[in-house]
Formats: sequence, C-alpha cells, structure tokens
Amino acid sequence: MSTRVRISELPHHVGEVVQLLGWVRFRRSSGTKLHFLQLRDGSGFVQAVVKKGNVPEEVLDAAGKVPLESAVSITGTVREDARQVGGVEVTVDGVDVLAPCVDDFPIGKKEHGVGFLMDNRHLWLRSSRPWATLRIRAEIIRACREHLDEQGFVCVDAPIFNSAAAEGTATLFPVEYFGDTVYLSQTGQLHMEAAAQALGKVYCFGPTFRAEKSKTRRHLTEFWMLEPEMAFADLDDSMALMESMIAHVVARVLENRKSELELLERDVSKLEPATRLPYPRVSYDDAVKQLEGTEHAIEWGDDFGAPQEDAVSSGHDQPVLIHRFPMQIKAFYMQADPERPELALGCDLIAPEGYGEIIGGGERSPDLEYLIRKIEEEGLPQEAYEWYLDLRRYGACQSAGFGMGLERVVAWLSGIPHIREGAPFARTMARTAP
Amino acid sequence: MSTRVRISELPHHVGEVVQLLGWVRFRRSSGTKLHFLQLRDGSGFVQAVVKKGNVPEEVLDAAGKVPLESAVSITGTVREDARQVGGVEVTVDGVDVLAPCVDDFPIGKKEHGVGFLMDNRHLWLRSSRPWATLRIRAEIIRACREHLDEQGFVCVDAPIFNSAAAEGTATLFPVEYFGDTVYLSQTGQLHMEAAAQALGKVYCFGPTFRAEKSKTRRHLTEFWMLEPEMAFADLDDSMALMESMIAHVVARVLENRKSELELLERDVSKLEPATRLPYPRVSYDDAVKQLEGTEHAIEWGDDFGAPQEDAVSSGHDQPVLIHRFPMQIKAFYMQADPERPELALGCDLIAPEGYGEIIGGGERSPDLEYLIRKIEEEGLPQEAYEWYLDLRRYGACQSAGFGMGLERVVAWLSGIPHIREGAPFARTMARTAP
Repeated sequence: MSTRVRISELPHHVGEVVQLLGWVRFRRSSGTKLHFLQLRDGSGFVQAVVKKGNVPEEVLDAAGKVPLESAVSITGTVREDARQVGGVEVTVDGVDVLAPCVDDFPIGKKEHGVGFLMDNRHLWLRSSRPWATLRIRAEIIRACREHLDEQGFVCVDAPIFNSAAAEGTATLFPVEYFGDTVYLSQTGQLHMEAAAQALGKVYCFGPTFRAEKSKTRRHLTEFWMLEPEMAFADLDDSMALMESMIAHVVARVLENRKSELELLERDVSKLEPATRLPYPRVSYDDAVKQLEGTEHAIEWGDDFGAPQEDAVSSGHDQPVLIHRFPMQIKAFYMQADPERPELALGCDLIAPEGYGEIIGGGERSPDLEYLIRKIEEEGLPQEAYEWYLDLRRYGACQSAGFGMGLERVVAWLSGIPHIREGAPFARTMARTAP
Repeated sequence: MSTRVRISELPHHVGEVVQLLGWVRFRRSSGTKLHFLQLRDGSGFVQAVVKKGNVPEEVLDAAGKVPLESAVSITGTVREDARQVGGVEVTVDGVDVLAPCVDDFPIGKKEHGVGFLMDNRHLWLRSSRPWATLRIRAEIIRACREHLDEQGFVCVDAPIFNSAAAEGTATLFPVEYFGDTVYLSQTGQLHMEAAAQALGKVYCFGPTFRAEKSKTRRHLTEFWMLEPEMAFADLDDSMALMESMIAHVVARVLENRKSELELLERDVSKLEPATRLPYPRVSYDDAVKQLEGTEHAIEWGDDFGAPQEDAVSSGHDQPVLIHRFPMQIKAFYMQADPERPELALGCDLIAPEGYGEIIGGGERSPDLEYLIRKIEEEGLPQEAYEWYLDLRRYGACQSAGFGMGLERVVAWLSGIPHIREGAPFARTMARTAP
C-alpha cells in the first residue's frame, strides 16, 4: 500500500512507496522506453521517471503521450537525487490519468502577451511565476497579522459600504443599494480611529476601492490595504511601527519563501538590508533640497510623484521614511506640526529599487474646531462626518496609524514590475474577469 | 519616572509606579476625599483610587468631577487586590485630563434601544459587550487562519468585482464601473477552485455581499466569509476540515478569550463539547424522518429553514453535520452522489443552541458536459462561465471545500442573538452608517 503524500513532504519519505496526486507540467522522453514527467500538486514540483520494465507496456505508452496539465495519480518510490529540485525524484510503478486535457493547454512554453495571460489568469496561476508570487503574497499577509497580533493589536474589519465619501467623491465607486446610492470604501481609517478609542490598538486588512482612471503599473481599482491605528500614539510611534512591521515581513519572506524567491530569480541581497533597523528618515524639506538642480526638482509645496520617490530613495539600500509633508497636499484629518503648522505630521515609506511608496500614514488631528473648519474648506458634507467628529467630542486622544498597500509590497518583494501580478485576480479599468 | 504600561500588563508591574493612558469609564466617590475611577485603555479595565493626601487638592477635586469618557493620563502605584478584575488596582498620585468630553457621553448606564446604539456604533464600541465581542471576533479570525496555514493552505484573496453573477442575479449588488456594470462578489468559491488547481489547498477570507431583502437576525448585506478549497478532495475531506477547524477555533477562544466570555456571561460549558471530535453526522434523509410528525416536518426535497436546523441539532451538544441534500436545492456546481444521483455531496454545519447554519460546503462536479447542461437549465449565461468550465477542460480534479460565515460564528461563540453585533460596523438593508 502506498501513502498519499504532498510533493513538499517527499524529502521525508525517501525509500518509501507513495501516491502523488497532481498535474503533468512538462514531459520529456528518451526514445520509447523512458519518460520524464514533471509533476506539480500546488505544494511543489518533482520529477517522476517512468521506465520500461518498471510498469506495464500500456502504462509506459500512456505516460509517453499524456497531455500536459492532465490530472494524474502516480505511485512510485521516492529516491534521493541531489540534482533535482527538493533533492528527490520518484521512480514510477503506476500512472493513472484521472482527467486528460480535452484540448492543448493554452499556456505553453512560448512567450505570451500579458493580455492573453490575464485573460487566462485562471490557468496562468498554474505557472511557476504566479505560483511563487501568490505564495509570497500569502506569507506577507501572515507576517503582517503575526506582527500586529503579537503586540496586542485587535483585527477589526472596516465596512465596505459607506453612505458618505471619506476623501471626496472623484474616485468613488457608487453602488445601487435598495434604491439608494452608497459607496465602496477607499480606506478604513476613520472607522479604525473609532475602534482604537474602544480597543486601543487595532487594524483592518481588507479590500479597498479606487475608481482612478490611471493605468500605471502601480494602480489597481481593487486592492488590499492593511491599516493599523493606535490610540495615544504619535507620528514617531507610527513610523516605528511601519519599519518594524516591514522588517518583520521581509525577514519572514526570506526565511519561509526561499525557493519561491529563487524561482523568481529575485536578488535577495537587495532585500536583506530591509531587515535592518532603523530605516533612514528624510524630511520633505531635505528631500526637496536634495532634488534641487536635478531633473526631478520640484517647488516646495508640490507633491511627490514616482520620479521624486525614486530619486530620494535611490541612495539607500533600505526603505526610506519621508516625513513632514506640506499640509496642503495631505488629507483634512492630518495633524499639523505644532512647531511648523505648514507641515503635516505624516510619513510615507518608500521601497528601494524604484518600487515606490508602499505605506502612507501619520498622526490625526484631535482638534474638533480645526476639523470642522477643514471639512468646510474642502467642501465635504459635515453631516456625513458627524460620527467622526464625535470621536473628538468624547475623549479625543492622540491617534496615529498608516495604510499599507499589499499588492505593492508583493510586487517589491517578488521583484515584479507591475502590481497586477501581485493580486490573484487583478482588477483594472479594463479588466473585471476572470 | 513612571513607565507607560497598558492595563492588560499591570499584573506584571505590582509595586511599581506606572503611567496609564485611557478613558474614564465609571466614577464613584466616597464624600469629597476619595474617588474611584474605572479606567479602560482598550486592553482591559482597572480601578484607580484617588485619595486625599496622595494628590494635590486641585487634582482631587478634578478627579471627583471628570466627565465620563474623558481621555486621561494617570500615574500611580500598582497594588495587588484580589477583589478587582485582573487582581490589581492603582493608587493614584497624579491625574491629567487630556481631553474632557464636551458633552455628556450619549451612552449611559440606562437601557438604550438597539436603533440608538447602532446609530452610535462608533461610541457603543467602547461598552464592554461590543469590546468583548470584537476581541472574540479577532481571535476567531486568527484561529481560522492559523489552522489552515499550519496545514499548508495558501491564502488567495478572491476578487470583489465580478463581471458575471455566480449564482443568479437576484441578490447581487450592481456597481457602476467606468460606464459598465459589474457586481459585488457573493462567494469566492469559483475563483478558489481555479486557485486550488494551481496551489493545491487554498482559502479566501474577505467580505462578501448579498442584496437580500431579509431582515432576520441571521442576515447582513455585507459579511465576511472564509472559503477553503482543496484539490483532489471529496465530501469527507471537506467535512473533516469543517469539524477540525471549528474545534480548533472554539478551543482557542476558550483559551485566549476567557475574560471576554465571562464579561458576556457566556455559559462556556455549552461551548466545550464543540472542542471534541468527531461531530455527529446526520443525513438529510434521516433528518427528514426525524422531523416527521413534528411541527417542523417537511416534504423530502424541501430545503431546511432555521426551525428545521434547530430541531435536528437540538438533541446534540456538539455542532451537527447534515449531509447529502437533494440536488434541486443546491447550487449548479455540486457533485451528485454516484450511488444516488438525486443527492448532492454537500454538507451544512449547524451550531448548537439554535445558532443555526454557520458553514455550507461539499464536493464540486468535475464533469464538463454535466456543468454545461446545468448552467443551461438554470438559465445562467454560459459565456460568463467559460473560464470556470476551463477548469474541467484542463486537468479536472475532484475539488471540495466550504464557506463559513464569520459573523454567525461570532454570534454563536459570544452568545449574542443577532449577528449585527458580530460585525464591527454591521450593514443591513436600512443601515450603511456610521
């Protein structure tokens, strides 16, 4: 009798007869007497060797022509082989084709355009690159939650349906709601501030939505955002949490997703510096000075774009914290620097190697009158913010936190240039299927 | 100098002078010389004793009239006191009111209607019952992910925007999408089947949406669903995972959320049986027989409602697995029992004590022709399902999994009758704020 084993567990079963259930990824034959099947089962990859004499003639023949991506059950003996991925291969004594492909599998070894691959994302997922990327993505999610849970943060999910816009209506998706209109959440932050006043340290981690018409490699219409929020905390606390969390995440990925990074040919020496603390801190003022006279120079008061982010971070091998931006380019709820009220106590974390901003956050204003004035100045409907203003009426506290865009972190750590590959099923202006 | 400490850590600081940052929950005075402040900081609750002689006169006076829910900083010495929650209290030597409430806090000790409380959910969260419930909710999320991650499942988030309806359009929310219409996801299952063919064992855990006009205590328009899916797995595997996961979750909550359950006055002896495996299994056939002659009797072929679920589970102190329902009441993709094709290889998990169905799942049909016929019979647009049908064209495998409604599990474990309290900010037909 053979035991059913996952490919990732094979190294613990050397010398044993096992059953594998999976798909045929590649096939290579040496004449009619020897066939090499590369199998995958989701947990990993292994070579299965089908040899004349070890199996009945009809099984040998079938193995020599099993269509790629057919589902198979294979029995055989696990052998050590240092040349193979995982250090083992399987000498096959039985092959059972459970479900042959009805047609040629659409994704072959040849180069496909990204449009074709995205149209076939449900099948493309089986290729090694999406496989590795999604396993890295899952590890990032796990490490983020682990880091926060260990420090006593409580996961509190923010609502997706909202009757009002948090930061203006330009990039909102409207939803028909039993005859009314509501909007999909762009951020959980305001709700997290309420939750922090109840639970102290909280986070939400779920999908958020932006109807941005941008088609850059850094934007999706639907993306996951992690938003921790802390009561009685300031900008420094927020920056300390940004860097400790990212350092923890990078360490976990390097530790637990080694073979996936190898498969993606990711240069891990470029990631290792991100496990060292602290990260360099650059003020907006200094960043603007640093850009003076370069092609990316901006006026004081202008917002950073990708070129500015890249230029400022290019001198560093760690992520960089850029802090204290001009108030005019930040959201209405940001706290002003008491020493220089033209500056907001906010901070962005910029990934190295040109991957850009992956976190933005800072300190929130606890001042009721100030917030009412800002809401009016920005033309937002005060009524919709009454509940948020209540947080200042009843025991206002210093509150700080940030938002981390998950797919951007996936793209950075996996070394993929476009964040659409950082989502399992990316949604953009032109794509809502499969 | 005093160290800043969270209330939950106080037992480790007995005899030390500490600083606490939090809110005044209750206040009680014994004349003008002695004030008891109950503080909360999100991590827990503690009594702070302000006594004449220990603090300056003006601090004593201020402490005697600090408005409830004001934010305060308190310094004092931690004393053991077995009569107190957490076994400690604080003898105060300094009180600093950081932000007094501008008005009386709207939520007092008196009874409020649930409408008022939900209108003020952003403030109600601070009360002990939502506090405890949301901490239990976070523990359930953690335990689910832990159980699956430890077994090699990969978290793969399903998309929220979908161009087509998975199970008919009646309960879908339409979204305006750059001039087009898309729909909010009701389930991630179809996408998880694709992901399982790539990664073997996967799960998604995110918000799902149902535009149901029902106003029962078991329905929300927005709720979180955990959906694991396994390639090369059958109904038995699915049932085994349902019960092992729920048993793990209940054990973790009993272990790590003891004081929250006490605060909710939850009878934990009613939860303990759910940590024992296996759970009783009842076939739909037997369940229908069991109901015969009772007020909840149904015809063979009819679906179960809450009364039937409760009647079948009432004889058991563990959750009950009801399996093999008639095909006609299940989704088109369900696998038929090869021995009795009128039955679907599906299973619901029913919580004890009348909390009803918390999980539904089973085995999916791998049969391309069958699925095409079913899609036609149910009047669904085949074009929208072409990608899903591809999963049968290219290496179809036995696939099984389930969906668990998070808020229902929260309601059960917390012992709350209405699932709106199981969500941080519940969304129903009539409620999309705060």
